[in-house]
Amino acid sequence: MLSKAVVKYIKSLQVKKYRSQHQAFVVEGGKSVLELLQSNSFELEYLYVTQSFKEAHTPLLAKASLCEVVKEEDLVRAGSFASNNAALAVARMRPLPALQLLPADFVIALDDIRDPGNLGTIIRIADWYGIDKIICSEACADFYNPKVIAATMGSFTRTKVYYLDLPQWLQQHTDNYKIYGAALNGENLHQLQLVPEGIVVLGNEANGIRSEVAAQVNQLIKIPAFGQAESLNVATATAIIIDNFKRNA
Amino acid sequence: MLSKAVVKYIKSLQVKKYRSQHQAFVVEGGKSVLELLQSNSFELEYLYVTQSFKEAHTPLLAKASLCEVVKEEDLVRAGSFASNNAALAVARMRPLPALQLLPADFVIALDDIRDPGNLGTIIRIADWYGIDKIICSEACADFYNPKVIAATMGSFTRTKVYYLDLPQWLQQHTDNYKIYGAALNGENLHQLQLVPEGIVVLGNEANGIRSEVAAQVNQLIKIPAFGQAESLNVATATAIIIDNFKRNA
Repeated sequence: MLSKAVVKYIKSLQVKKYRSQHQAFVVEGGKSVLELLQSNSFELEYLYVTQSFKEAHTPLLAKASLCEVVKEEDLVRAGSFASNNAALAVARMRPLPALQLLPADFVIALDDIRDPGNLGTIIRIADWYGIDKIICSEACADFYNPKVIAATMGSFTRTKVYYLDLPQWLQQHTDNYKIYGAALNGENLHQLQLVPEGIVVLGNEANGIRSEVAAQVNQLIKIPAFGQAESLNVATATAIIIDNFKRNA
Repeated sequence: MLSKAVVKYIKSLQVKKYRSQHQAFVVEGGKSVLELLQSNSFELEYLYVTQSFKEAHTPLLAKASLCEVVKEEDLVRAGSFASNNAALAVARMRPLPALQLLPADFVIALDDIRDPGNLGTIIRIADWYGIDKIICSEACADFYNPKVIAATMGSFTRTKVYYLDLPQWLQQHTDNYKIYGAALNGENLHQLQLVPEGIVVLGNEANGIRSEVAAQVNQLIKIPAFGQAESLNVATATAIIIDNFKRNA
């Protein structure tokens, strides 16, 4: 059983201010906790699992120094999921290595992606396509938000997400990298011969790419529309665009 | 101001049983309500808008016989959104035309897609790519679920979603249509010459395509992985697959 104090602590980590203060974050659900344990790249503070989860993953859990069996209702009480019959962990944030681009790097840059589900899904997509760096403008959703972590389905353990002044950073890279930007007035993705190198910028859910970011883009691209929907969800668009680059890899 | 009885009625429509009983559903948010009004294909029962929404869309709203100005807090009280400074409507369900496939039709079939956000996002993707029919197994999320409607971003007005016994229906079409199924052991999508005709089956979020559905599939396809994520979200996968078909359209 989780103490009141621990539940209060875990709940506090839903708020960015307290995550920063404690340098810790919450990982919920069986798949995400398994990836956390397998990755060995985050130090654990707490690990709570149900009896059935423990039995299903005995060898892996034996390596975790702290592991307490609790009831599903305890996991739900402490976490943000409506149901969780598997596991919940609290892990320490880790410092990222300094951001350095290699000449043939292919990275995603996000300009003010506010929805945590979108950011998490984009991290998962990046991981699927072998892209290990995502650049975020400072107003993007927080990587350690529990909804971001959950939506990555474990890919948070592999993908490195950097927060910085995006227009300024792009300006520093515009001479050496091709910078693509997704926009409804861009060139048809299906008619381009794309090489998976450079930087692909995706913009805010409602407003697209800011003008100061667009100023650094040297090729606008669009996903051709065949029907009447006005737009696609930004995570959907990211997936389609990256797939179009990677089909030539 | 919305009466208690109306709020109670609108709230009841979050539950499928009451939607079926009243043959009505809720549309929330400015974009979705605008598309509803423009489509003219659903009869309105109620329409509530904020003063600012009314002022921004006077000509369109003038055509709606019933339109009441309320406060944002009323829209939030009646609806399911955390914030809504635009509009909320209750509309009547409509009967669909009988499902008939043309020889060159290209349709999406969903096997037990349970998450309303996923179904709504897939409807939006279908609409983007000009696919106007989606076939759902009976256990899929309900088209009229407010979360499905919201995730379609207006595409619910154009895309026709049919619920039926999927294995049986596929069996009836296996002689005349190519039936593709998304599976991790399928053929690499990037290496196929795909023609956008036939039926593309996507499976359940956790379990993929059921065996009785897989038995009707005549080509398994997969999105090639370049990294370490184990899977993609089903709406993401649908978008990538459909894009790969449509790039040859």
